[in-house]
Amino acid sequence: MKELVPSPIIWKNDELHLLDQRLLPNEEKFVICSTIENAHDGIRDMAVRGAPCIGFTAIYGLALWLKVQKVYSFKELERAASYLKQARPTAVNLMFEVDRILEAVKANFSANSKVQDVYKFVLSDGHQQIENSIVKNTKMAQYALEDLTKKYGVKKLNLMTHCNTGFLACGTLGTALGVISYAHSQSRVEMVYADETRPYMQGSRLTAYELGKENIPYNIVVEGAASYILKHKKIDAIFVGADRIAANGDTANKVGTSTLAIVAKHYGIPFYVVAPLSSFDYSLKSGDEIEIEMRTPDEILGYKNIRIAPQDAKAINPSFDVTSADLIEGIISEKGIVLKPNTEKMKIFLKD
Amino acid sequence: MKELVPSPIIWKNDELHLLDQRLLPNEEKFVICSTIENAHDGIRDMAVRGAPCIGFTAIYGLALWLKVQKVYSFKELERAASYLKQARPTAVNLMFEVDRILEAVKANFSANSKVQDVYKFVLSDGHQQIENSIVKNTKMAQYALEDLTKKYGVKKLNLMTHCNTGFLACGTLGTALGVISYAHSQSRVEMVYADETRPYMQGSRLTAYELGKENIPYNIVVEGAASYILKHKKIDAIFVGADRIAANGDTANKVGTSTLAIVAKHYGIPFYVVAPLSSFDYSLKSGDEIEIEMRTPDEILGYKNIRIAPQDAKAINPSFDVTSADLIEGIISEKGIVLKPNTEKMKIFLKD
Repeated sequence: MKELVPSPIIWKNDELHLLDQRLLPNEEKFVICSTIENAHDGIRDMAVRGAPCIGFTAIYGLALWLKVQKVYSFKELERAASYLKQARPTAVNLMFEVDRILEAVKANFSANSKVQDVYKFVLSDGHQQIENSIVKNTKMAQYALEDLTKKYGVKKLNLMTHCNTGFLACGTLGTALGVISYAHSQSRVEMVYADETRPYMQGSRLTAYELGKENIPYNIVVEGAASYILKHKKIDAIFVGADRIAANGDTANKVGTSTLAIVAKHYGIPFYVVAPLSSFDYSLKSGDEIEIEMRTPDEILGYKNIRIAPQDAKAINPSFDVTSADLIEGIISEKGIVLKPNTEKMKIFLKD
Repeated sequence: MKELVPSPIIWKNDELHLLDQRLLPNEEKFVICSTIENAHDGIRDMAVRGAPCIGFTAIYGLALWLKVQKVYSFKELERAASYLKQARPTAVNLMFEVDRILEAVKANFSANSKVQDVYKFVLSDGHQQIENSIVKNTKMAQYALEDLTKKYGVKKLNLMTHCNTGFLACGTLGTALGVISYAHSQSRVEMVYADETRPYMQGSRLTAYELGKENIPYNIVVEGAASYILKHKKIDAIFVGADRIAANGDTANKVGTSTLAIVAKHYGIPFYVVAPLSSFDYSLKSGDEIEIEMRTPDEILGYKNIRIAPQDAKAINPSFDVTSADLIEGIISEKGIVLKPNTEKMKIFLKD
């Protein structure tokens, strides 16, 4: 159902093609990465974005590095991996995927292995991760829709979302927006309300672009309109993604998520978090331990080349916030759904 | 204390000078109104804004009309007044001030009166209203600060506000922002957090401009950051203005106000509404009867000449929302403060 949106990440002719998401929705152009440096810069400069796509890009980045090596050295591979990890130090999926592939290479190859074989292994792992992701995303969407059907029967739904968590972020169906796409494929969507997502406008630029391409009826709204929309538009459920989920279910996600969750709780509207297990961090007891990335005030003070605020204006720009588990109706991963999450219930995701 | 900000509304050389607020903060230019049509267009096209300033502009607009009449006719004056009222049909202060001045003229003049005398009367009423407003605004600020002192003692305060309700909106101290200015003049402000106020950016463009001119320490934040700011920044109180207050205390104000009030309630932070009695509408039992103005989606879909969302994107743009009285710690007018407002308590504002 996503064939109308260009794939954000494509391996073609031994090179990595990244859809330049900074130019969307006005231009559909690809950045071609033929070196590990290109892949690193694509992540750092946000040509590619979304936790899953950042992870895939890192795997392909290692493949690009291996392609031009004469001999295999695990130590050198580790150095290359560490370089990639620095592209966006707070993206948990980047660390997760890079560490996972390093472990896999270590387990499967020895000092005498041919570098060409390691290259093929890493490349095919990249392809495999995207394939796996389709399966995982679809499962998550099914769990979500099952829960909505339990609550509301089979009626058409008014849904709301924040930021962009679709095909462009995930390279496959998507997480929170994947639920909406999937529900639409089952003719279950009446209307979607998409937060514009200040200051980086992922909602206006990317989510609206995806929803439009799929002919899903939607309206963009400003974040401040949350109370108005939830009070007047018969919203059935809200779906968001996650950048990091602590052991108790507290969830770090794009700034505005927690604000929306509080308004949802006030009006009694169920609020769901949808994320692959690679976004779960059981080493953190609660959201209080999650460090929040502060980004440049410039993102708020102007738009592109236009200055909005006074020249000497001050702003603070936390890029994420933490939604307390008690505001969350359900957390959904590829392993199922946990309703009204807490530390005890969250352990179910750890079981094989 | 406001001498560094140009006055938004000045009567000079028999003409009305309106600071063009559309050009702020980058340019400080005046629109000169020498006819009633100029004043009408200044209101309609938002060169002047803020409920009180719109009201003052309407009075001066009638003066401009009277200035060029040869004879006095109340019927003709009514026609001119009705033309002015159409400039922004939802601004309650516009209706209030125009109806008030019509009543006053009717009571003081007869068919034989000289039009020049009526002109002088209306003009001096305009000046008087601005003078009165300074007194009213200062009283409101004092009531507010007294309540904060009861709650917190004399410590320096972290305050938050939404939209612009200062000198630029009121022509005098201001309502909600007036409280902040006044508290600063008493050395009681630690830090102000100002919502940028999507989509029209009154916070980034105007509130930041005023706070900067007065050297009040501030940070602009996106509306989505409300939960983060209220949780982490030790906010002592939030102050907002009002476009219309119903008999039970429900308050219509710039979109985002109700969202912020819900988040404030969640974190137990007192939320105050500050407005002159001209913004109170006792004909409405509750906020459910307040009609919400829907503005063009274009305000959301792009900024100035830059398109943000896809060309065919959809948005809905409610310009106001209604904050339920039970979310409000106090409503402050020139007649005092009502804590935890309800219909019974609100009657105190009606007493002489």
